[in-house]
Amino acid sequence: MEKREIEHKKVNYKLHIAYDGTRYHGWERQPGRPMTIQGKLEDVLSRMTGTEVEVIGAGRTDAGVHARGMVANAHLLTDMSPKEILDYMNRYLPEDICVQKVKKASDRFHSRYNATGKTYRYTCYVGGLKPVFDRKYVYILDELPDIEKMREAAEYLMGTHDFMSFCHNPRMKKSTVRKVDKIQIQRKQDYLTFTYHGTGFLQYMVRIITGTLLEVGMGKRTPDSMKGLLEARNRSLAGATAPPQGLCLMEVEHGG
Amino acid sequence: MEKREIEHKKVNYKLHIAYDGTRYHGWERQPGRPMTIQGKLEDVLSRMTGTEVEVIGAGRTDAGVHARGMVANAHLLTDMSPKEILDYMNRYLPEDICVQKVKKASDRFHSRYNATGKTYRYTCYVGGLKPVFDRKYVYILDELPDIEKMREAAEYLMGTHDFMSFCHNPRMKKSTVRKVDKIQIQRKQDYLTFTYHGTGFLQYMVRIITGTLLEVGMGKRTPDSMKGLLEARNRSLAGATAPPQGLCLMEVEHGG
Repeated sequence: MEKREIEHKKVNYKLHIAYDGTRYHGWERQPGRPMTIQGKLEDVLSRMTGTEVEVIGAGRTDAGVHARGMVANAHLLTDMSPKEILDYMNRYLPEDICVQKVKKASDRFHSRYNATGKTYRYTCYVGGLKPVFDRKYVYILDELPDIEKMREAAEYLMGTHDFMSFCHNPRMKKSTVRKVDKIQIQRKQDYLTFTYHGTGFLQYMVRIITGTLLEVGMGKRTPDSMKGLLEARNRSLAGATAPPQGLCLMEVEHGG
Repeated sequence: MEKREIEHKKVNYKLHIAYDGTRYHGWERQPGRPMTIQGKLEDVLSRMTGTEVEVIGAGRTDAGVHARGMVANAHLLTDMSPKEILDYMNRYLPEDICVQKVKKASDRFHSRYNATGKTYRYTCYVGGLKPVFDRKYVYILDELPDIEKMREAAEYLMGTHDFMSFCHNPRMKKSTVRKVDKIQIQRKQDYLTFTYHGTGFLQYMVRIITGTLLEVGMGKRTPDSMKGLLEARNRSLAGATAPPQGLCLMEVEHGG
């Protein structure tokens, strides 16, 4: 078949994926780094179809970050059913990457461009001991931060703002305006979770917000300092980036 | 101080311990094997007290088996408070071993001889996909076994029996009679759990019972074949030993 003919016969599939990001250099394929989620998925699908496959993820999670609800899409030339694709992928992917669902999508479906919302959760352990079974999925805090103060600070961040102060990339050329419509801070027994929902997030944004809120909770900043922080558009004024293992991409929406 | 004087000044402490057994050759200290739970605990306590310490565990979990509620005791020569001992141990133990509680016990308290009951849980994953976050704590089954048949089989094993057929050690010299007063088989979403309670268990007994019940659930044995199996007192007639990562020691009782 000619290349054009192959492209014409390809079908676009939507994939739901969960992964334990501990061993990986993040989602995005990088030259010379075999351990990326995108790379593992593309390798398996390329082998399955005998053609080069690009897997487009709804977001590019960073090294060490996990996902329970990543959505991706890939145009595949195959006679296999969605169920057969799912079984093939799960058989050949490593044990820390799971394809949860495969279904046909319209040709124009693009998991990133068409994403309308994302939910991230950041989990801290505040039990005072050692979370032996969850240690790779939480950030261990030595003391319990003041939850009310953090909630107060979070109020300033909700809504549509320029989040340049919470963006890891100082040379960001595109807009750093984002809308965050939920920041829920909850304590459940030994765990403190920060749940974020928005249309999209800048690089490290969730971890920098979490790190900054934790500094508020520890009394190092006041809740109302968030206002000036947003206005400053200066990453160096925000808090430390919370470590990656506490972060998990929970859900991606494609409303329409 | 003379040795006798040191022994006299030692105080007996009861320890509650949780551990992820993945990286370990089991509880029991073994020459030439640095990765044992008992060995790690003894090393930290010996360093803390400057004397040789023996840590006595209520049970000897096998390689790869986990614990959420191991109980142990150790006679220690120290001026530290129980809270200080706990903090010291957690600081110097690896991240997959946690001391949950330390308290003074009577001199005669022996965590193994005085144990009156133990609860073990064996967890299988039956979700049909891949449990990326729990993969080191479950046994992955390809299909859901027949729960009612397994419950029926379990009835035959409850009570006081000679469990020689479920004992790993064919040269066991001591009694192989044990009392099992609970075998609870439950499905919760993607997980199938077997909860066992008894006064004590033989080596591999929980895993051999689980493996045998799973064979009943898969239709390879009948529930009523358990009766003959107990009578045969022959390990080779029972089912396969279920793999270690699904097993967890949940609780040890010291009633009195």
